[in-house]
Amino acid sequence: MVDTVKEGEWVLLYYNEKKSYVVRVERGRVFHTTHGSIDLAKLIGLPYGSFVETNVGEKLVVTRTRFVDRLEGLQRTTQVIYPKDLGYILLEAGVGPGSTVVEAGTGTGFLAATLAWYVRPSGRVYTYEVRRDFYEIALKNFESLGVLPYITPKNKDIQEGIEEDNVDAVILDLPTPWKVTEDAASKLVNGGVLVVFVPTTTQVERTLLSLKKTGLKMVEVTEIMARKYQPVPGEFRPHSIGVTHTGYVISARKL
Amino acid sequence: MVDTVKEGEWVLLYYNEKKSYVVRVERGRVFHTTHGSIDLAKLIGLPYGSFVETNVGEKLVVTRTRFVDRLEGLQRTTQVIYPKDLGYILLEAGVGPGSTVVEAGTGTGFLAATLAWYVRPSGRVYTYEVRRDFYEIALKNFESLGVLPYITPKNKDIQEGIEEDNVDAVILDLPTPWKVTEDAASKLVNGGVLVVFVPTTTQVERTLLSLKKTGLKMVEVTEIMARKYQPVPGEFRPHSIGVTHTGYVISARKL
Amino acid sequence: MVDTVKEGEWVLLYYNEKKSYVVRVERGRVFHTTHGSIDLAKLIGLPYGSFVETNVGEKLVVTRTRFVDRLEGLQRTTQVIYPKDLGYILLEAGVGPGSTVVEAGTGTGFLAATLAWYVRPSGRVYTYEVRRDFYEIALKNFESLGVLPYITPKNKDIQEGIEEDNVDAVILDLPTPWKVTEDAASKLVNGGVLVVFVPTTTQVERTLLSLKKTGLKMVEVTEIMARKYQPVPGEFRPHSIGVTHTGYVISARKL
Amino acid sequence: MVDTVKEGEWVLLYYNEKKSYVVRVERGRVFHTTHGSIDLAKLIGLPYGSFVETNVGEKLVVTRTRFVDRLEGLQRTTQVIYPKDLGYILLEAGVGPGSTVVEAGTGTGFLAATLAWYVRPSGRVYTYEVRRDFYEIALKNFESLGVLPYITPKNKDIQEGIEEDNVDAVILDLPTPWKVTEDAASKLVNGGVLVVFVPTTTQVERTLLSLKKTGLKMVEVTEIMARKYQPVPGEFRPHSIGVTHTGYVISARKL
Repeated sequence: MVDTVKEGEWVLLYYNEKKSYVVRVERGRVFHTTHGSIDLAKLIGLPYGSFVETNVGEKLVVTRTRFVDRLEGLQRTTQVIYPKDLGYILLEAGVGPGSTVVEAGTGTGFLAATLAWYVRPSGRVYTYEVRRDFYEIALKNFESLGVLPYITPKNKDIQEGIEEDNVDAVILDLPTPWKVTEDAASKLVNGGVLVVFVPTTTQVERTLLSLKKTGLKMVEVTEIMARKYQPVPGEFRPHSIGVTHTGYVISARKL
Repeated sequence: MVDTVKEGEWVLLYYNEKKSYVVRVERGRVFHTTHGSIDLAKLIGLPYGSFVETNVGEKLVVTRTRFVDRLEGLQRTTQVIYPKDLGYILLEAGVGPGSTVVEAGTGTGFLAATLAWYVRPSGRVYTYEVRRDFYEIALKNFESLGVLPYITPKNKDIQEGIEEDNVDAVILDLPTPWKVTEDAASKLVNGGVLVVFVPTTTQVERTLLSLKKTGLKMVEVTEIMARKYQPVPGEFRPHSIGVTHTGYVISARKL
Repeated sequence: MVDTVKEGEWVLLYYNEKKSYVVRVERGRVFHTTHGSIDLAKLIGLPYGSFVETNVGEKLVVTRTRFVDRLEGLQRTTQVIYPKDLGYILLEAGVGPGSTVVEAGTGTGFLAATLAWYVRPSGRVYTYEVRRDFYEIALKNFESLGVLPYITPKNKDIQEGIEEDNVDAVILDLPTPWKVTEDAASKLVNGGVLVVFVPTTTQVERTLLSLKKTGLKMVEVTEIMARKYQPVPGEFRPHSIGVTHTGYVISARKL
Repeated sequence: MVDTVKEGEWVLLYYNEKKSYVVRVERGRVFHTTHGSIDLAKLIGLPYGSFVETNVGEKLVVTRTRFVDRLEGLQRTTQVIYPKDLGYILLEAGVGPGSTVVEAGTGTGFLAATLAWYVRPSGRVYTYEVRRDFYEIALKNFESLGVLPYITPKNKDIQEGIEEDNVDAVILDLPTPWKVTEDAASKLVNGGVLVVFVPTTTQVERTLLSLKKTGLKMVEVTEIMARKYQPVPGEFRPHSIGVTHTGYVISARKL
């Protein structure tokens, strides 16, 4: 039984080891690559693994996507979180199928979408975004990823109060998380986890100070660094230039 | 409504920021800490968040566990994988609720158990372990974690052939993964991911060489480093001594 | 012409790849190793590269030392600076043969001694140490390393004023460097460098703030991380556990 | 007494925290910056610390240089070594005033020049470069840095034999150092150090294998990573993007 591309699915179009594209298959849309353009409707019904030809005759392999691939295809409004941090936050927050999670700010939606994908099918993610324009784009991103059924997006300022209670985790990716830590702590179940992600050590210090007032314990600060290597046997080595910092992950527990 | 400890649940017993314990609540078992011992049956029925007293009068807070906490309470037979690597592998392999995954070698079972916890409720993990003694301890670990319903543990050598087909991911944490990469590649669905985790660069090079024969593409090698910080406002800094290496994560895709 | 061991020289006594010792050759001293003891007088006149036998018949190779080896043989009073940081500070401070440098606090003397070794024969290092006991041990350390001719050790608090002027570099390894930065800046020649080494990000921030008042420019903060690898062909990999942090190097220039 | 700029000296021309230039003061040369051009003859006689104006009226501060600044002003032919590695190699090789060192390949000359600057005034650096064009540019670089009196540059292939003997250190920055390690080992004094700098783990492994034949001991492999931080109080953090790899430093000792 051959599996074929359906409308609304995400596909990865592979050209070579240096260049591939991720796009959602929609009728009536033409996708432009540096190797020519493709009418996306042409993909529908193609078996996965087959070639598609651009208008200039270049061939790309039509491939199934992983969840993280699809994130690459989204419209971005804010700095996004990288897989190295997403994976660590997921485990550190104890979030998995069935979890109830509060998250803010939504931003582009990478973090909320990833959480939603992992709390499926019985969990739920409540995500707060104060800016209307970000909220609307995130909504579209959640829809196109198919995770909207597991998310409650809110166009609200989380600093005005978390409306959920007894949540398994609160995850904050905000410029001023210390304004929310006390409220967040009060909304966690026993054993629940507050996770804060911030780029500067100054923010870490202010967050740590604020945690003292919350009664949360088992405070940890971790920095996840991912080093990419040149995957060439006989010339194996890290890349010369790369990402050297994203942020610090602070976690604390309700006892 | 107060939530209380039930038999078979895992609890975290918190003493202070330096010392806490993770244990599964079983009748007839006495748990020994450096602050005295606790008859675990005493915990049953206690509200989460309450104190329990040891036989020498020390108090510990009875707290709900995250999944990664429970891993800490397992009996170990082999070197285990750390959360920093588990989280990254999860996202890199594209594994989530509903995924079908093959994994080897089982070892202590950290990786298989984590994968199982994340493919719940509709996915499945097939894990291979050639050593009978490791297999049996892993089986007990899966049972005590409650993830056995999502795992098919096999006391078999994966080098003799992967028995599953059309799997979403194959994850290898073996000394000689290059003996399995070709078979693994043939059992992946389109877009499926092979992930290999090895500690030495020599193993990375041999694995990269073997990948050339598989036709897998989009090869990446990543090293995830987690740096722990001293969570003290006014004295914020990384710890002086810590883990400096676990392993390299190699991934490749079936097109 | 064979070179032989002379009294007062430092030697490295090599037992195997895991164990070697560094000691200064002094008459009347017996050196104790885990492989037996050696009357150091016995070493005098031995050709370098020959074996010496301990009182229990174990053999060690008598080897010439590098400067950094000798540091290992010193009596320590304080946390010392590692070669990875010493080397970077040396180049960053622009210190070499002929330089004039002010340093504080002396502590064990690793930094002052290294600077002295590198400003030879025509440069000079002025080092301040407020504690009498540290000062006295450092003095002995400088003597035994043979660098005292290039050092002016002072049992003074550098916070009460730097007595030198027109110096090429001021290097501060102090808990509160921000109390000295303004004075330090005023004592530098044009193009001179202030280098501060501190372990916490909190100290970095206070130092950076203090630098604004000094008029120093080209401010940089760098962290030097050294990762040690297992030097085994066929099993090449970083060590699992190691040093994960020493300190941050801040530098600024007088224009 | 005011110190003034002399012909042949290197100066740093500071525009702001983002932009400065390093140039050697030569009559008859016009130096072009993005802020206008400067007739370098105009600098001669100016007091250090004063302003110079470009032809479009922009002002730059005329500042004394550190040794590492001058390296930035050289003509480059090959990948160069960074200060983080230079400083570590210097200490690890035990090189300082008075040392005798053999180095190859010369390349642009950063390493040889730095070694030369540090062995002054009584030491010597012998540097081998097989390519005539590189050799000639390196020669000019050594002259302009003023270190030529301490260097013997050779337009020879070091693989054909090291012509010096009883040297304190041999430092190899070559694609195939394993072809030279045996010869290098035979030319070291007792306690002398062989240092090899290579970018790939494959080269590290081949070098480690070759060291077994040399009888050298105390083998170490170290990677020096420098992380640059944004020097802003209130927003202290590492830069997002930066250098993630240069090379591995292998060292071994003659006993």
